[in-house]
Amino acid sequence: MRRLTPSLLAAALLAAARPAPAQPAAPPDYARYQPAADRIVAAALADSTAWRRVAELTDAYGPRLSGSDALERAIDRMLAMLRADGLANVRGEPVPVPHWVRGDESAELVVRDAAGALTRRKPLHVLALGGSVGTPAAGVTAPVLVVTSFDDLARRAADARGKAVLFDVPFTTYEETVRYRGLGAAAAARAGAVAALVRSVTPNSIDSPHTGALRYDSAVARIPAAAVTVEDAMLMHRLQDRGLAPTITLRLGARTFPDAPSRNVVAELVGRERPDEVVVLGGHVDSWDVGQGAMDDLGGFVAAWEAVRLLKRLGLTPRRTIRVVGWTNEENGTRGGRAYLAAHRGELAQHVFAMESDNGVFRPSGMRLAGTPAAVAQVAPVGRLLRALGASAAAPGEGEADIDPLLTAGVPGAALDVDGSRYFWYHHTNADTPDKLDPADVARCVATFAVWAYVLADAPGRPPHGPAAAGR
Amino acid sequence: MRRLTPSLLAAALLAAARPAPAQPAAPPDYARYQPAADRIVAAALADSTAWRRVAELTDAYGPRLSGSDALERAIDRMLAMLRADGLANVRGEPVPVPHWVRGDESAELVVRDAAGALTRRKPLHVLALGGSVGTPAAGVTAPVLVVTSFDDLARRAADARGKAVLFDVPFTTYEETVRYRGLGAAAAARAGAVAALVRSVTPNSIDSPHTGALRYDSAVARIPAAAVTVEDAMLMHRLQDRGLAPTITLRLGARTFPDAPSRNVVAELVGRERPDEVVVLGGHVDSWDVGQGAMDDLGGFVAAWEAVRLLKRLGLTPRRTIRVVGWTNEENGTRGGRAYLAAHRGELAQHVFAMESDNGVFRPSGMRLAGTPAAVAQVAPVGRLLRALGASAAAPGEGEADIDPLLTAGVPGAALDVDGSRYFWYHHTNADTPDKLDPADVARCVATFAVWAYVLADAPGRPPHGPAAAGR
Repeated sequence: MRRLTPSLLAAALLAAARPAPAQPAAPPDYARYQPAADRIVAAALADSTAWRRVAELTDAYGPRLSGSDALERAIDRMLAMLRADGLANVRGEPVPVPHWVRGDESAELVVRDAAGALTRRKPLHVLALGGSVGTPAAGVTAPVLVVTSFDDLARRAADARGKAVLFDVPFTTYEETVRYRGLGAAAAARAGAVAALVRSVTPNSIDSPHTGALRYDSAVARIPAAAVTVEDAMLMHRLQDRGLAPTITLRLGARTFPDAPSRNVVAELVGRERPDEVVVLGGHVDSWDVGQGAMDDLGGFVAAWEAVRLLKRLGLTPRRTIRVVGWTNEENGTRGGRAYLAAHRGELAQHVFAMESDNGVFRPSGMRLAGTPAAVAQVAPVGRLLRALGASAAAPGEGEADIDPLLTAGVPGAALDVDGSRYFWYHHTNADTPDKLDPADVARCVATFAVWAYVLADAPGRPPHGPAAAGR
Repeated sequence: MRRLTPSLLAAALLAAARPAPAQPAAPPDYARYQPAADRIVAAALADSTAWRRVAELTDAYGPRLSGSDALERAIDRMLAMLRADGLANVRGEPVPVPHWVRGDESAELVVRDAAGALTRRKPLHVLALGGSVGTPAAGVTAPVLVVTSFDDLARRAADARGKAVLFDVPFTTYEETVRYRGLGAAAAARAGAVAALVRSVTPNSIDSPHTGALRYDSAVARIPAAAVTVEDAMLMHRLQDRGLAPTITLRLGARTFPDAPSRNVVAELVGRERPDEVVVLGGHVDSWDVGQGAMDDLGGFVAAWEAVRLLKRLGLTPRRTIRVVGWTNEENGTRGGRAYLAAHRGELAQHVFAMESDNGVFRPSGMRLAGTPAAVAQVAPVGRLLRALGASAAAPGEGEADIDPLLTAGVPGAALDVDGSRYFWYHHTNADTPDKLDPADVARCVATFAVWAYVLADAPGRPPHGPAAAGR
């Protein structure tokens, strides 16, 4: 996931509105790649293999949380498929990953009237936040205190001791709202709460809890934390507003085990002239332990994989190597992205460009670019090759978590930009399933990745390394 | 719920397009009610009591399935509130209702690869259909056979024996698609299936099962039946298409008990001149045993109740009596509507008009009218009083389940017509909660009900009884 801050957004808008500053003396002439780009796009759109593979793999193995047997079996299967596809240097690069297991969980709300008489016992549809500690087997029982922000919690801090603090924060942007999922438990613990509840981070709910990672503060107690549905958060809030604060019993069977072995999935189309120089593209192969991780993010990895398979099938062998990477453990550790950098630090200077898709392979609009102004200016015209596809956007913007270590190390790169209108409806839920992806849009993502990868791997010049100006 | 068939829709469109036939000699002049209507609308829009009451009642008692203690406690509370509001002749009229209890339930899908090796065990989010028999405690385990229609089942009948038959029918209209929920279990049993699964009847899913009633066929076995989510139905379908038909274990704790006592809720604003003549309006107070039954249908009943309370508050006492009714047991028996007719058959001739809201108190567009052409022509101009509210529609259309016995007996009537764009997203799910209703739209429904009730209870003439022409 990108992290798009308001200042970044402003920078991106400015960059889109103004002529790019500091153009290199001779802006690269990518127009000669138009016939190849058109061939790539036509072939991609005629092929629904990408969607089919996302469906087959995610149907067979289901969710793939780090440390799970399902993730490693899915990786084994993908490595076998990559070899069968005839890609080169197919390998799993070892990455030790966190191993958190949800276990059984449940929650019940007890509602009383103004006289204190019980009127209702309501089971709540909850999901422990990833990394949460468990509760004792009998659960944690506490009155609920609803707050609407960290500031509101600070104002009510005297009331929070011994409570289950619920952050009922309506969705605005992911970046704003997800702070409560990430930091709510630590803030509640600091105020003496015994459990933390977070309204699911979504603009639309059909009684659907959304999980995701939390971050504890080592200075305060680790208290159990769970996401509740938008409906249940609003229910508790209404009850509190009526002076009828309910009581919750939360039972979480969550446990954290020692790190487990996992792997980054790597495969290559070896370059014909400069095989040691690489363009990297991919997505992450792990997912949360709900749904099937089709949207987040097997689709991203498979789109990259299919892009390379397509170039091979079309006989388009570029000057440099194209390396497809399926990073592991994006969701609860980003160990895959960091392990990739550690394993390839010696060839960092040979990394020409790094791309990732991690916002769902919905209809693509183009690329968000990261790098020095000169690098951005040099690669941006590649987007024009995708005008007919409607995916020509190429403005500075946020990167993605798995390529972030490379971008931070100065490698220029890009994130696939897509229609995000429904992404957060399904994000980190049981509804992250292949039916949410349109095979034609997935094929468009394959085409976009393939054109960018081919052109940047083949063009005589390469964009310079260096710190991103705004952009990330 | 209405049942809008294509022929009805055509009739309604025709009626809207053509001048009304057979106008009575002197069409009633309702224009003199415009000042009263404007007063009613202004007062309704200034008041959010209706939404607040829906929220308070459904938050306090939760879902209210027939036979449940929650339904009867909610009815007690509503009767007390109606009395406190100063309405007349407040009473609960006895109705024996079916008593079905869901119990604990679960389902697990076992997915194997082409070689028969297990790749995945997936818990399914299911809801037994209302009225289903339970399974043995260990559940029913069977291979899944996916069919796409009753015809498809007939074609595959030889494969259905011993299977769990899944009807994977994408949502088109409620009327078309709900047939599989209602009749799928009987059809599957006829083909020798041991369980029936139905894709939830909804155009939008976030892993959300939708319950609802089924109807068994006494000539074949009663097999356990459950709704699965759209996501899980599509998963099973994809697996079958790949030749990997999965196996399901379905455990339903459902039981049917002897009929239980319930009540229709009745209260009146007594007419000043002809108190024995009544305009009836209401909704149903029962719900399915999931969510809170805020949309389906406490909002409908409360809108009617608030309409009458509003008239009383404004001192608008009409010529005839306005009777608000909260029918019980609409969902799994429609016993309330039939018991109302049975209890009031002696005063049937004094029933001037009958109205119901049961499509959610979303933004109202007007009324769907039922009755003889003369009756429809006589009342339709009332709609014009609501032009400023945008709720002036008044064309023939479907009635509603609870007033159906009255309409069938010849009483003219109407159903509140509303924006239905999201109704089936939440229908019969855990997401039927007050947050789905907009207080301003609920107030608009109150206004629409109040104007229609007041004018038809006060106008000197009354529409004739007789069979509806098209309309229902």
